[in-house]
Parts: sequence; structure tokens; C-alpha cells
Amino acid sequence: MQQLTVNLDDRSYPIHIGSGLLDRVELLAPHIAGRQVCIVTDDTVAPLYLERLTRTLVDYAVLPVVLPTGEAFKNWATLQQIFDALLAARHDRRTTLIALGGGVIGDMTGFAAACYQRGVDFIQIPTTLLSQVDSSVGGKTGINHPAGKNMIGAFYQPKAVLIDTDSLRTLPEREISAGLAEIIKYGLIRDSAFLDWLEQNMPALRTLDPQLVTEAIARSCAIKAEVVAADEREGGIRAILNLGHTFGHAIEAHQGYGAWLHGEAVGAGMVMALQLSRRLGWLAADEELRCIELIAAAGLPVAPPADMRAEDFTRLMAVDKKVLDGQLRLVLLKRLGEAVVTADFDKQALHAVLAVAGR
Amino acid sequence: MQQLTVNLDDRSYPIHIGSGLLDRVELLAPHIAGRQVCIVTDDTVAPLYLERLTRTLVDYAVLPVVLPTGEAFKNWATLQQIFDALLAARHDRRTTLIALGGGVIGDMTGFAAACYQRGVDFIQIPTTLLSQVDSSVGGKTGINHPAGKNMIGAFYQPKAVLIDTDSLRTLPEREISAGLAEIIKYGLIRDSAFLDWLEQNMPALRTLDPQLVTEAIARSCAIKAEVVAADEREGGIRAILNLGHTFGHAIEAHQGYGAWLHGEAVGAGMVMALQLSRRLGWLAADEELRCIELIAAAGLPVAPPADMRAEDFTRLMAVDKKVLDGQLRLVLLKRLGEAVVTADFDKQALHAVLAVAGR
Repeated sequence: MQQLTVNLDDRSYPIHIGSGLLDRVELLAPHIAGRQVCIVTDDTVAPLYLERLTRTLVDYAVLPVVLPTGEAFKNWATLQQIFDALLAARHDRRTTLIALGGGVIGDMTGFAAACYQRGVDFIQIPTTLLSQVDSSVGGKTGINHPAGKNMIGAFYQPKAVLIDTDSLRTLPEREISAGLAEIIKYGLIRDSAFLDWLEQNMPALRTLDPQLVTEAIARSCAIKAEVVAADEREGGIRAILNLGHTFGHAIEAHQGYGAWLHGEAVGAGMVMALQLSRRLGWLAADEELRCIELIAAAGLPVAPPADMRAEDFTRLMAVDKKVLDGQLRLVLLKRLGEAVVTADFDKQALHAVLAVAGR
Repeated sequence: MQQLTVNLDDRSYPIHIGSGLLDRVELLAPHIAGRQVCIVTDDTVAPLYLERLTRTLVDYAVLPVVLPTGEAFKNWATLQQIFDALLAARHDRRTTLIALGGGVIGDMTGFAAACYQRGVDFIQIPTTLLSQVDSSVGGKTGINHPAGKNMIGAFYQPKAVLIDTDSLRTLPEREISAGLAEIIKYGLIRDSAFLDWLEQNMPALRTLDPQLVTEAIARSCAIKAEVVAADEREGGIRAILNLGHTFGHAIEAHQGYGAWLHGEAVGAGMVMALQLSRRLGWLAADEELRCIELIAAAGLPVAPPADMRAEDFTRLMAVDKKVLDGQLRLVLLKRLGEAVVTADFDKQALHAVLAVAGR
């Protein structure tokens, strides 16, 4: 087992990574204040792991809440089901919510914890590769609005993150690829040596070699923890974690949430960010190509959906949370392993990237 | 004009109290980060003050959002109208929300600010006496759930509070009384000299003598600011601000939100807390009587609705946010000017108070 810490003063918390952690009550107990626990999961994960986690928590009063699966349900109506269950079971301020599932469950459970009685504790147990390396760490929680992804939410940190790598064994291959998108992202924005490592090990990672997967998750979480500790509420540097996301969110919104996996949209979005960085002269053509090949090797799309036009991107990206005073800001690469957030780029170059995308 | 400060480190903020403040852009401008401002108000306050405030903010891009009036609309559907308007007008993270209205508008606007794009700035301009002395200060925001009042929300501090005492002139007498309930509360829980002062000045306060009203608001806000600074997230002492509220919330829930004004329910609820404190031997009978007379002199009800039974209270109080691990905790008076939050009281005495109430 590996352990990392997200350093945020009195809100610091551990990330445990390893095999069989779902059974280890001693990793959870220090983070549960009272007797009441509410496990929030979805109807895909529940049959796989809910009973097992409930057994681990045999000494607590466990309330299970099973939500419908998928990004399409990441909305207020589904969130309300958590509140309804908590209130019906009279859970008080000392309750602890546990998110057992992927990013949608983690984001919604965290937001429910942020809002229930103005804030209760919660623990993340991410079961998908994508949520293990990304959304479970850092305290971004929220739901979607018809006009934009994650538009309603809170910065609200968990008390602990428990990553049981065994849960990846039940994950479809497509979801493994989606997780690899975010892992590649960490190399691109912050760690070119990690990029080299990923190029060497991509085939073995896709077959879930246990040691390599643990290493990739730990390295990703360490980079994320470092960036979050430096800028919890995304006043500056934290925005680099959104490489490819502005394009990706536009893809997800255009296709309807859930049609493309988040990681798939980020994969195609990172390719667009790479193309723009190269057009701006910040990346060499061979560097751009090398990275696009790595994204493809992870089993990810390297182009946006065929039915998306440049205007679709322009319209959908205008509501991005990184827009400030009407100016679109993008995460781009100054070089491999170094990202910047900037509104100071040639708009013609952006239009060229979007125009190619729209063919 | 009087100025106070709520001391919360980097989230400290000023409270300005005085006449004609709605026209003074220099009090608002330091707290508005960008060009975008969204004024949230209701259809009662909008005809009175929206145009005037919009004129004050002539140098900004002002988006008005006018919600239906009343506690009955303090719910997700109404909150959603704020998000819809912000997204349609493409307000970004640097927008500033301004709550122009009573407690319902303040609570909802603050919660919208807490959640929109995971948190934007907001300013409180409370226009009712109750919101001026209570909900506009301290950062409690939220909406109601059918199963309980303020069950969904956030602790989220405003950047400034602007209290224009002129706005009380358009307030119905019943709402003045409701505000006086919270003012009396501050004397009861923290300041017996203020109680004496209120007894002497109650008739003049009800006719809105400008100097006395400003003094009463400033003294109330000072006590609230002190308690909030000591315990922002209500881990302990802050709960004393809820004197009478557990009973009061049960009254509001039972009658349907909005039927009784919040301050009216708190008035009757404080009487019940006084009765229980006396039954426990903490207050003398003449002290209890004196306080009940002060509450009556403010024009407030001193008994719960005739159709409420003891069982109604028991059932509705079980979901109170002060319940911990199944135990009901109440704010009671150890003596005049000193409140405690405790689960350690004779349950028979509580039942006696509820039984009398239920006649």
C-alpha cells in the first residue's frame, strides 16, 4: 500500500492506494465521527462492492443510497435523492457520507456532503481509474446544469481517499482508457519524465499490471495533491489540471452528457490543446505527434466527434468556468511537462484548430 | 453611519449601518471584483428599491433577477432561476451577486453565490429588520427541504453587509415585530443590560425612531459578529444564536413555511425556551414573566399555534440540525444574558412545556 497526503492545513487528508483496501475498516474508522454512515453508490457499482463495504462497516449504522448510473444523472434531481434519504433516516450533522463509485458519484456525494445541514464529513472510495487519479482528490464537487458541466458545486475536501486497485478488474476497457487520459495529462502538464515512463509502459498499463497501475495512480495523485495544495480554490495554477477540458467539456455538452466518457472527451481535447500549442510555436511538430500517439496508444479518440463544427466549440466554450470578464482562457503547453493558463494567444491559431476539428 | 467588522481572518468583512446607504456606490465598489453584478431581489422589494440600486451601480453590467416573494419559494426551483439567469447572461467566476431583500433573498442569494461555478462573491443588502440583525451577518446560507428548514446550504460569508435603515419605512408593522424578536434574543442570550434598554425603548423602537433603531441594529450585529467570529461553523457557542429556533422551526414547518413569519415563530419559541429554563430552575418566575412581557410588547405571539400538539413538536424537532447522535439539544437560559446549548435537561420538564403548549 502507498500513502500520500494532500496538505491543506487543518483540512489535510490521506490518500491510501493498494489492493484489498475495501476490507480495511482501520483505514476508514479514524475519519468517521459518529455512528451514522451513508454510502452513496450507483446501480452499476452497488452489485459489485456495496455488500462488501457494508460488511467492513458492520459496527456503524449504514444507510445505502443507490443512484442511477451515469453522467446524465449528475443533476439536482438525483442529488435530491441523497438528501431525501438522509432526512428520512434522520442523519444528523455528525453523519459521514462515503462515495463508492466513479467521478459522478464522487462529485455528487461530495456536493451533497458540502450542502447537507451546511456541511458534513465525507470519504472518497473511487472505483474507476479516472476518479482514482483525478476527481476523488482535490475537493471539486458539483453537478451539471443544462447550460454547462459542473456549473453548480463547491470546493469541499474529503476526510480521506481510499483507492482499492482491485476495483479496476471489473472496469470495462473503455473506462481504463478514459482514466489513462488523465494520467497522461499529468505528464503533459508537469512531468516529462512521467511521459517517457508512460510511453514505455502503456501496453502493460492497459492490461492492468498491478505494480505499474499502483505506480501510475500514486504518481498522478502526487502531482494532483501538489497542485491542489498550492492553489485549492483555483485562483491560478490549479487551472492547469484542466488541460484539454475546455475543449472536452464542449464535446461532452454537444454530444449529450454520458455519450462520450469524460476521459475520452479529455483525450480528444488534449489533442486540440497540443495542436494549438504547436501552432503557437511552443511545441515542435514531433513533440505534438509523439503525444498524440501516446493518447492513441491509450485507446483514446484523437479527434472530436465528426458532427461538431467550429461554431459549436465557440458557443459551448463561452460558458467555461475559466472565462473571465468575457475572455476565454485556455490551458496550453509551453513545453512538454509545463502548462500555462492564458488568454494571450493568437485567436487565428485557435480558429485554425477548430476549423480542422470541424471537418 | 456606524461601521462594524466581522473578524474572520482573510474572510473578514464590514457591516455598514445608516440612512441613505443604498445610494453610496463607494461602499459597494471595493467589494465588486469585476464588471458583472447580479442583483437578486423579490417582487415585493423590486418595485421599491431595485431601480435605485441599479442607478447606484450605473458603472457596472447589472443583471436583475426578480424572484417570487416568501419563504414558500425558498427552494431549489427558485434557486435554479438565479443559476439560469447567470448562465444565460454568461456571468463568470468574477461576478458579484447582491442580495437585495429580506432573509429569504439573502439566504438564497448567498447559497447561489456559494455554489455558482463553485463559489463567487456576494454582498448582503438586507431590507427587513429581521435580516438586518440576523441572517445577513454570519454566512449561513441555504434553502428549505420539505422535511426541514435550511437543511440544504453552506457556510459562506459575504464580502460586505450594507444596512440602509430607511428601508424599514416601507416594512409592515408585523415584520418590524418579527425583527424585534431576534433583537430581544441577543439580550436574552448575551447582554442583560441590552434587555433593560429594550424594555425602556420598546414603544419608540416600534415607531422606528431612527437613532434608537440604528442603535438596536448595531448592538445586535455586534453581538452576532462576536459570536460568529468565535465559532464560524457552529461547532459550539454559535448555536446559542438559535434560542427559540428549534421550537420556532417546528411551528413554521407545521403551519407551512410563510404562514407564520420566522420572527413570530421565534418569538413564541423563545417563550417556550424561557418556560423550560424556568421549570429547570435556571430562571425565576418573575424573570420569565418579564421576558414574556417584553416579547408581547414587541407585538409578537407568546404561544404556539392552537392547532399544534406536543407530538407535532416532538416529531418536527427530531430533524433539527442541533440533533447529534439522536439526542435533541436545546438552547436554554442559565440566567438572563447567558445561554447554553445542552442535551442535559429533564425530559419531563420539556414534555410539560410541550403539553401546555398543545392545549
